[in-house]
Amino acid sequence: MAKTNPGRFFEDYAVGDVLHHAVPRTVSGGERALYHALYPARHALYSSDEFARGCGLPASPLEDLAAFHMVFGKTVPDVSLNAVANLGYAEGRWHLPVYAGDTLRAESEVIGVKQNSNGKSGVVYVRTRGLNQRDECVLDYVRWVMVRKGNLELPAPETFIPELNEAIAAKDLVVPDGLDFSRYDFSLAGEPHRWDDYEVGEQIDHVDGVTIEEAEHMLATRLWQNTAKVHFDTTARPDGSRLIYGGHVISMARALSFNGLANAQMIVGLNGGAHANPCTFGMTIRAWSEVLDKAETSAPGVGAIRLRLVATSGDAPFQLKGDDGKYRSEVLLDLDYWALMPR
Amino acid sequence: MAKTNPGRFFEDYAVGDVLHHAVPRTVSGGERALYHALYPARHALYSSDEFARGCGLPASPLEDLAAFHMVFGKTVPDVSLNAVANLGYAEGRWHLPVYAGDTLRAESEVIGVKQNSNGKSGVVYVRTRGLNQRDECVLDYVRWVMVRKGNLELPAPETFIPELNEAIAAKDLVVPDGLDFSRYDFSLAGEPHRWDDYEVGEQIDHVDGVTIEEAEHMLATRLWQNTAKVHFDTTARPDGSRLIYGGHVISMARALSFNGLANAQMIVGLNGGAHANPCTFGMTIRAWSEVLDKAETSAPGVGAIRLRLVATSGDAPFQLKGDDGKYRSEVLLDLDYWALMPR
Amino acid sequence: MAKTNPGRFFEDYAVGDVLHHAVPRTVSGGERALYHALYPARHALYSSDEFARGCGLPASPLEDLAAFHMVFGKTVPDVSLNAVANLGYAEGRWHLPVYAGDTLRAESEVIGVKQNSNGKSGVVYVRTRGLNQRDECVLDYVRWVMVRKGNLELPAPETFIPELNEAIAAKDLVVPDGLDFSRYDFSLAGEPHRWDDYEVGEQIDHVDGVTIEEAEHMLATRLWQNTAKVHFDTTARPDGSRLIYGGHVISMARALSFNGLANAQMIVGLNGGAHANPCTFGMTIRAWSEVLDKAETSAPGVGAIRLRLVATSGDAPFQLKGDDGKYRSEVLLDLDYWALMPR
Repeated sequence: MAKTNPGRFFEDYAVGDVLHHAVPRTVSGGERALYHALYPARHALYSSDEFARGCGLPASPLEDLAAFHMVFGKTVPDVSLNAVANLGYAEGRWHLPVYAGDTLRAESEVIGVKQNSNGKSGVVYVRTRGLNQRDECVLDYVRWVMVRKGNLELPAPETFIPELNEAIAAKDLVVPDGLDFSRYDFSLAGEPHRWDDYEVGEQIDHVDGVTIEEAEHMLATRLWQNTAKVHFDTTARPDGSRLIYGGHVISMARALSFNGLANAQMIVGLNGGAHANPCTFGMTIRAWSEVLDKAETSAPGVGAIRLRLVATSGDAPFQLKGDDGKYRSEVLLDLDYWALMPR
Repeated sequence: MAKTNPGRFFEDYAVGDVLHHAVPRTVSGGERALYHALYPARHALYSSDEFARGCGLPASPLEDLAAFHMVFGKTVPDVSLNAVANLGYAEGRWHLPVYAGDTLRAESEVIGVKQNSNGKSGVVYVRTRGLNQRDECVLDYVRWVMVRKGNLELPAPETFIPELNEAIAAKDLVVPDGLDFSRYDFSLAGEPHRWDDYEVGEQIDHVDGVTIEEAEHMLATRLWQNTAKVHFDTTARPDGSRLIYGGHVISMARALSFNGLANAQMIVGLNGGAHANPCTFGMTIRAWSEVLDKAETSAPGVGAIRLRLVATSGDAPFQLKGDDGKYRSEVLLDLDYWALMPR
Repeated sequence: MAKTNPGRFFEDYAVGDVLHHAVPRTVSGGERALYHALYPARHALYSSDEFARGCGLPASPLEDLAAFHMVFGKTVPDVSLNAVANLGYAEGRWHLPVYAGDTLRAESEVIGVKQNSNGKSGVVYVRTRGLNQRDECVLDYVRWVMVRKGNLELPAPETFIPELNEAIAAKDLVVPDGLDFSRYDFSLAGEPHRWDDYEVGEQIDHVDGVTIEEAEHMLATRLWQNTAKVHFDTTARPDGSRLIYGGHVISMARALSFNGLANAQMIVGLNGGAHANPCTFGMTIRAWSEVLDKAETSAPGVGAIRLRLVATSGDAPFQLKGDDGKYRSEVLLDLDYWALMPR
């Protein structure tokens, strides 16, 4: 009996299956320190217990994207080991902050399958939930990937494509219990701009850039126990380069966005995202944002802002797609998310 | 008076000497997070406090190899600063798990010396013990190294070669107090294979590979406070490359072995080990294992498995030695250890 | 309204201004583990809670230089974003150890300005204080930088150059409450040399070297939330190399100085410092020290030692300046500090 995990193929997924992902993880101050070492992350709520307490939380939570990566990493052996491409995200919501001492695990339900016309692969849709040690859902999201078929002779399954919202409605965003921005310290947070200062359609160039190093993206990717070999093994790809985990680009771009969006503190919704082009060693990542929407919340002093976050390997902001409607070659990431800001 | 440590030479060791190694170290969640960032480590007992509690332990311990490296690192200034080669390990046992908050120190007793026939160096055998803040032994092992002679005119000491067991007898393995695998969660652990599923002689290809980066092995080696200059200073070796700490290869191979041996949770015995060839920047490390022995233990649901773990810079598994009986040039590590698995 | 921070220009500083720096930071065991992974740091007081308790402290503090970098990093967006050069340090004192769980913030008072004769830049002097969550000052220091002028047409401000002490007087050094070296364990600390064994004028070659890697200095610099782009973005400098944060060189040299100064445990004073030449990727850093002064303290068994710490990219120690009185090209750092040692 072979002991190693060959990964699942397209035919191994059926709508309604629930996959219980392996290797739960307890977080500590170590994950926070490493996150700050790996990314130029400066959002005060995630840096200072005192600042978080001033906002009504018991302590500084784990960065929302770190929680996302940790949950995502657990799904890789069951969902994307034989994936050809990560196609999209939708309906992502953060339900509960994660604190030092919490233990995360993950499970995914298959919510859609569609074989490709070439018969060699198919698209699998899963809704993944991250759970803490009290079995509370800390975050969930839908992701769809293209997966190779193992046995080409098997018939195509019945196509089922889930209906997905184009964006989380503002009323469905979960504001953490107790969150209160009414005594928010803008000086400690680093910028004076409040929710009211941002306009839909406004674009922000985050100015700074970080050139990618191999050791850094590998440290990050392993920290989330994402062990997909393309991220680590230079012999796994024809060109001898490592493919950088898309989540590394997301976290880098989000951290760079501090410069102009220092007060977009908590990420609470992931409406969608595309890894437009692969990222490899030596690229200098820059980021820009666009305000897509704004909404009030019932929490004191808390507004919600919907943002497009674009990471690029080029040096000109605000360029997204060419005349052909396709992403420009330098665009690495186009992410659509909701954050909470002081009003 | 010279203030820097010149290291000990062969003539500075006498059988019966006890060396008290410097720089005790308190561990925290930071060491665990870094271990997971540096290696694709996924064994659940070391990742989740909840999983560890489900196995009868009070919390998730520090990885056994991290505890080993930490103890080993402390011995370097006293044992191997002038070493020509690390020749072997024997009789290694883990006696107590190490938890966040514990402080480790180390001491070594010289248990053998043998001058080489060329009169320029000799072999020193030491038994090293790692101790916690309660002076309890957390692990011990024998190691022998070839050390340069400082004063060639001194007479050779009387040769004393300790008798060492070829392997730890299964009955001498220490199973941590309270360890209980009778309610072991194979789904959370990541693989269904239990102790009964492995046969002596079985070989497992761990499939994945990781290409070595300079920054990573230096971070790892420093984390264990191993400051031997060949690992850090590119001018210290004639070819301008850094020699990678053998323990980095051990941890990388062990972590890769998760794929096929996810349930070989706790390392409790080190029977022997050879760093067959040096590892340097750019090599892609792969690993394979062979089941050497199996034994029952008296702890509920706990079996012991003796494994050969081989790290290679090649891409073909199960190749160890050539027709000449010597390790093949791509073999980096041949390690012989005991682990505890659910039955 | 532009949302990104353009940084302050010379004309934006006036004597008496107080700058409240952003992004407070709570420290944990993670920062300690990372510090030990990034530098060959081995001073026992900062490695072991037990050792620290044996010296009268409640636990092992955060490395003094880590506290310094953390405070320094916070000042970058307000003080040195448009800086041409970091010119000097003076009157630095550590007032309180920083422990896991403490939250640091920083503020700076402008204490001097002097426009350069070219009218394009000027020198700004600030006194920066690091504060903990109880608003206690944990460290303070004076720093002066050359800053570009934004609007060249503005008149020069009245020149004010603060009077700065050439060194902290020994009587003004703050010895932490309870510090007691009378039962100091020299064996655990790693070297037998006590305060009495060092003579003014004595020079120590710290022997070891570390070759700089890009990923490492970036991890370090980000960990202190210093986001100055020259450290991260290879496109920000004409030669395509990253400029390494001077604090990385300070910490590397200090850690290397363990070999010969293992008992110079706590840094309590920063008399001055010059980043003599830029440090870039691939340099091998070595260090040497010179004893500049010694003083007694009233704490049991505690002596103060004033040290020059020099980091060099060359391989010959004890070379500082050429016949022209300027730093030799291989000298990276010339630091003057006070440390506490067992007598």
